[in-house]
Amino acid sequence: MKDIHEAAYAVIFTSQRREGGDGYAEAAARMVDLVQQQPGFVGVRSARGADGLGITVSYWDSLEAIAAWRAQVEHAATRERGRADWYAHYELQVVKLERAYRWTF
Amino acid sequence: MKDIHEAAYAVIFTSQRREGGDGYAEAAARMVDLVQQQPGFVGVRSARGADGLGITVSYWDSLEAIAAWRAQVEHAATRERGRADWYAHYELQVVKLERAYRWTF
Repeated sequence: MKDIHEAAYAVIFTSQRREGGDGYAEAAARMVDLVQQQPGFVGVRSARGADGLGITVSYWDSLEAIAAWRAQVEHAATRERGRADWYAHYELQVVKLERAYRWTF
Repeated sequence: MKDIHEAAYAVIFTSQRREGGDGYAEAAARMVDLVQQQPGFVGVRSARGADGLGITVSYWDSLEAIAAWRAQVEHAATRERGRADWYAHYELQVVKLERAYRWTF
């Protein structure tokens, strides 16, 4: 996989899980597998706290690559399940990387 | 507080906690209080999973506001403690918000 530092854009996905909802872990793992196959995908990092608030940041080569992932059929179907079963609310922000600094990452 | 959607820039702070390290929770809470007083601060969201990987996204009006927070004296001192005591590694990305979408957030 490329280094995240080579990415030009990112998507910040902030979500609040509802209690329960079958199939979430399997679907989340499947999305992580599937996204690796997308042209222009660079990497992903994710954290979810005990309060159910999660932040996932995916990194991309281009806005076109982000749009293609958004349109991916299985991903779109999983998004529908997310709204129906798993999330109380969520938000996506498409951002352009301006600069980065890391300490031993 | 302003709505996060009014922000122009964000900082994605991704960090891996080490085990232990006294004073972390207090310092983190103090930084959340302190940042609210910074001109140009819009909001912040944070998640840390059981594996110790955390993602905090802070939202800002301008690059100048981000630079001023970086230079804030107490914040800078706390960063030093972070490297010494609390984090195995961390990374900062300054990003420009291009567009956003939310579902019932």
